[in-house]
This record gives sequence, C-alpha cells and structure tokens, in this order.
Amino acid sequence: MTPFRFTQPIPTLCRDGDSVLVLDQTRLPWRSEQRRLRTLDEAAEAIRAMWVRGAPLIGGTAAYGVALALTADPGDDALEYALATLAATRPTAVNLHWALARMAAALRPLTPGARRAAAWDEAAAICADDVRCCAAIGAHGLPLLQAIAAVRGRVRVMTHCNAGWLATMGAGTALAPVYAAHLAGLAVEVTVSETRPRNQGLLTAWELREAGVPHRLIADNAAGLLLARGEIDLVITGADRIAANGDTANKVGTYLKALAAREAGVPFYIAAPHSTLDFGCPDGDAIPIEDRGAAEVCTVRGAGTDGEPAELRLAPDATAAANPAFDVTPARFIAGIITERGIAAADALAALYPEDAQ
Amino acid sequence: MTPFRFTQPIPTLCRDGDSVLVLDQTRLPWRSEQRRLRTLDEAAEAIRAMWVRGAPLIGGTAAYGVALALTADPGDDALEYALATLAATRPTAVNLHWALARMAAALRPLTPGARRAAAWDEAAAICADDVRCCAAIGAHGLPLLQAIAAVRGRVRVMTHCNAGWLATMGAGTALAPVYAAHLAGLAVEVTVSETRPRNQGLLTAWELREAGVPHRLIADNAAGLLLARGEIDLVITGADRIAANGDTANKVGTYLKALAAREAGVPFYIAAPHSTLDFGCPDGDAIPIEDRGAAEVCTVRGAGTDGEPAELRLAPDATAAANPAFDVTPARFIAGIITERGIAAADALAALYPEDAQ
Repeated sequence: MTPFRFTQPIPTLCRDGDSVLVLDQTRLPWRSEQRRLRTLDEAAEAIRAMWVRGAPLIGGTAAYGVALALTADPGDDALEYALATLAATRPTAVNLHWALARMAAALRPLTPGARRAAAWDEAAAICADDVRCCAAIGAHGLPLLQAIAAVRGRVRVMTHCNAGWLATMGAGTALAPVYAAHLAGLAVEVTVSETRPRNQGLLTAWELREAGVPHRLIADNAAGLLLARGEIDLVITGADRIAANGDTANKVGTYLKALAAREAGVPFYIAAPHSTLDFGCPDGDAIPIEDRGAAEVCTVRGAGTDGEPAELRLAPDATAAANPAFDVTPARFIAGIITERGIAAADALAALYPEDAQ
Repeated sequence: MTPFRFTQPIPTLCRDGDSVLVLDQTRLPWRSEQRRLRTLDEAAEAIRAMWVRGAPLIGGTAAYGVALALTADPGDDALEYALATLAATRPTAVNLHWALARMAAALRPLTPGARRAAAWDEAAAICADDVRCCAAIGAHGLPLLQAIAAVRGRVRVMTHCNAGWLATMGAGTALAPVYAAHLAGLAVEVTVSETRPRNQGLLTAWELREAGVPHRLIADNAAGLLLARGEIDLVITGADRIAANGDTANKVGTYLKALAAREAGVPFYIAAPHSTLDFGCPDGDAIPIEDRGAAEVCTVRGAGTDGEPAELRLAPDATAAANPAFDVTPARFIAGIITERGIAAADALAALYPEDAQ
C-alpha cells in the first residue's frame, strides 16, 4: 500500500483549546468561514443546521460536542443529556450514533473528574481513525488510477455528489483515490456532476479547486454523453449503505451513471468505509429509500448578483414532485468496492470483513 | 386513426387583425403574458429573445413575421429584407428556414398587390399544417397508451425537456399522445424531468397543469430509480434530429432515460414530425452535438420571493464546465418513432417516408 498523506486545505473540524472550529458548509462555495463551537448547544446546532455534513464529519462533530458538554459539567446527568441531545440532531445518520456510542463506552465508566480529558482524547481518536480510514481508501484505490494513467498518460474520473474531504476529517472516500493520484503526480481530472436537487456537486467542485485538482462541472444529464464519447476512464462514487450482496444505495442519480458506465465499458467503483457496510441487509430491495418531498425539487440555492447566498423558486408552490434522495445500484454494475482494507468485488465483501459477515 | 382535437389553453401564436399575439415564454411559469407583434422587427425580436421557442413555433412566428412586413410594404425589396432578417434570428433552427422557404416560394411569384393577403394565408396554412401534424402524432400514439391503460387501468408516462403544445401551434409532439389519451378519458399521469441546465421541464409541468393533465416534477437524477421501481409504463420524448439508421439526437439526458427504460423493460418512444428526419445523416456519430459553454451550467433561472423572474449563480465564474446540449440515443434502445404517418421501428423509417429516403 503506497503511503498517502493528505492535508485538508481548510480543516473541516479541529480542536482549538477548549473550543472547536468547524467550516460552515452552508455558505460554500460562496463563503468559506469557520465557526467556533464553545458549547453542547452550539455543536448540536452545527449538525442540525448542516454547517457540517457527511457521515464521518457529523460523527466527529458529535464526539467533540460531548467533550464541549463535559468541559462545562462532567457529571453523569450532563453526559447523558449531551448524548441524548446530539443523538436527536439527525435521527437517520448512522455514523452519528456510532460515534456517540463510542464516546459513551469510553466515558460512562470514568469518574467525572477523569472525563474531561478523556472526552477530548476520545473525540480526537475518532477523528484520527477517520483520517487513517480515508488515507487507506485512497492508497487502495490509487493503483486503479495508476494503471489507467500508465496506458493513457492521464486519468479522467467522474464522480457524483460529495464524498471528498469536506464530508470527512481526512481526504474523503470517493475522492481519496483522486487526491492520492494527484499527490503522486498523476495527471488526474475530475468530472463533477451537479447532483440536483441539493447540488452537492458544487461542494465537490469547490473542494477540488481548494486542493488544486483539475475538474469540470456538468449538469447531471450530461453524464451519459460524456461516458459514451469516451471522455471518462473511471467512475467513483461514495455510498450511503451497501447491502450484503453488494447492492449499493447512494445519492439519487448514481444508478444512471452506473448504467451509462457499463454501456460504455468504463469501470464503476464505489469507495466506502467499513461503517457503510450493512451485512444485516440482504440486498438492494431491503434498503429503505428516503423521500424528501417536493420543496427541494421546486427550489434551488445559489448566490445573487451580490454574491450572497440566496434561494430561488423553480416551480410554483402547488407543483407536485417526487424526490427520492437515493437510488440503488445493483452489485452486477459495480466493478469493485474500495474500502480501507482493500478492494473487493461487490459480492465478495464478506471476505474482507469476516467478523461482520457472520 | 382516432379523431383528436386539441385546443391550446392559451394560444402560443395567433393572428389578431393586422397583428399577431404570442405567448411570452421567457416569463413562464411565473407570468403568462401575451405580447402583440405589429412589425417585422417585433417578430424577429420575439424569435431572437426566445419569447417563442420550439422548432414548429419558431417557424410559424417567422411566417407571420413575413406577413407583418408585407402589410407595411409588399414590394420585392421589402420581401427579401424580411426573409433575410428573420433567417438571421436563430441560425441553427431548421424549421425556421423551412417556413421561410415556403413563404418565399408562395410570395415571390406574386405581384406586390396580391402579396399582402397571400402572406397572411400562407402563414395560416403553415400553422394549420402544424396543428394537423401534432394531431396525427397524437392519434398514432394514442393506441400505445390505450393498450397499457386497458391492462393497468391507468398509464404513467415519463418525458424529458419540452415537446408539448408550448413548442408548437398544436398539441405538441411527445405530449400529443398524452393529450389524446387525456381527452379520450384515460387516466394518464406524466412524470416530468427538470431538464437541467435550462429547466425546460418546468415549462412542461406548466403546460400540463394548464391542460389539466396530472403530473409530477422530478430532478433529472430520479429517473433511474422511478423506472427501476416500476413507477413508469412508457417513456416518450421529442427529437432534435433522427439519423437514417434511427439513432436520435434529443435534449441532453434523454440517453440516460433510454438506458434506464431498457434496463427496466419499459418501452422508450420518440415522437417527432417528418421535418426532424435526416436521411442524409447515416447514424448518430454523424450528428454534431452543440456545446453551449459553462454559463448555463453555472447559473439557474427561477423566481425570487417576490415572484419576479430572477437568476442565481450556482458556481463561481471561473468554474470550468462541459455543457453538451444534446445526446444521442442509439436506435436499438428505441421501441418506435411516432410520426404523423404512423409508428415505425427506428431502423425502418424509410418505409414511412420513401420519397425522402431515396
């Protein structure tokens, strides 16, 4: 595994004395401002108001939220109140609950006097683990890009949504192999799909620019033509949940890219950490798909002529809309899943994670 | 062929004495205002500024523009000046040139004194032909929807972009079979793809509402999931150009829907008039694809909180983008092409149009 060390251009989350700095993602790509979190309530608000987003980053922010709470009051009641408050911010985020469970396991057995320092240490450990996980995904994915660059002199990657450094404390998941390739000196270019209705592709374009990686933005509709034309060598996206048979739920629109990639003979990979695997879920049909309602489809966020974040209505309020947030890509369309333990065929993940697959 | 008579809820184009009323589509779906055209220059501006859009409607407006010019001055020079002025408004619109050639052929042989009335008559004839063409496409497509409704009790159609009554003087092309089914009393529902970057799907949602047809809007990304889930019975889109072998260029994103439809076993149809067929073009590889530059991808139009049309920036000005306006759907993914002469397999159009296919 090639060593790979990525430094976030602006830290998404970092401790600063007895407070925490987070990058406010609600104002990107127009304003990149850090916000200081000093209390439990501020940490909960950062998650609830989506200043931070992306499963690993939400988990890390929640962990530091517990540390902020215990800095004010390290007692048993305060600990339980902090865990409950943070758990209620984003009920469906699996990583959030995983991070809080890890904090609870580390802190409940301790005396209040020992908890303050331990909370900060455990939160830092959670973040360090995420950084290592991202780096491992990048290192395992890098040979795929090197193999293409060796033949073509460059490698052109398409991605969807945002699964880069902005969503994590490290190099990201889907984009970790891209950053590994860029740092290894390969000529890598990323085609970034807008990702309507929430336009997370604009975050991806911003983070690639901050990291100095050449890229271009496309409307989601253009992905098929660019793949058919031979303008893409490799597709890599993240995942929200991977079923036991390898069927993968990810941001809506991922499936269309997988179809077009297969048709064009372009390999389609998922990059995801261990925490995304759900061996209890047999296949894609068992993955529930959240429907987020009409409002997101009927509005769009951007910036006005003054450069200030603004929102427009696209369709009148009474317009009916369907808005599934995710779709499912069948395992047979996936060339492989890039994890922190290596790359596996989508239907052979159990070999990489035998302890979970029992 | 079932008789089918559709009345536009608001006329896209109609004569009113010595002037012409057009529906200003630049303010839809927020404002539906008719504008009165009194002169050649006003007609040219209506086309140039895209108050009217859609190939047949541009052609009809140009024809009436000649009539407006000759009403002021029926002389030879005025006729040639009008033809040249209108031809320069949208250089790539094939229907525009076809309509102007038809006006020229009808009017050049006449004396100036005979031209005024003849110009109005010929423009009206061009519009009437379009109305008949749309009605024939609707009537030929209707049995496809009836067959589905007979089995399922309803028919759920997906479309892309806008190829409805707004783009024509009649019932539209892709949506003509939908209106025929609605008027025949079938339970028809249309899933409308937003169609980034120019969001013509919002025009489609508006025109369906005006016509009383149930519909729902989706982000372009959602098409794959809805097809895979069995929520769509039939996909129908328009076409910008159909090659001799049946490969079809249409608004970018059409190809992704065709791929997802094939995967789901849902029939994918193109509805298009004769003027879209290009037997001189052997296949999809020979169809040039217009690249419209980054600005459309990096901005979006909608309405502000005051309901006034407004524009937002989505990405900073320096953002690189690829913006192909069309893509090509291979003939093998197309169940059939619905024309004014009937439905043909995509690779068998020559049988319907033997005089063109020579």
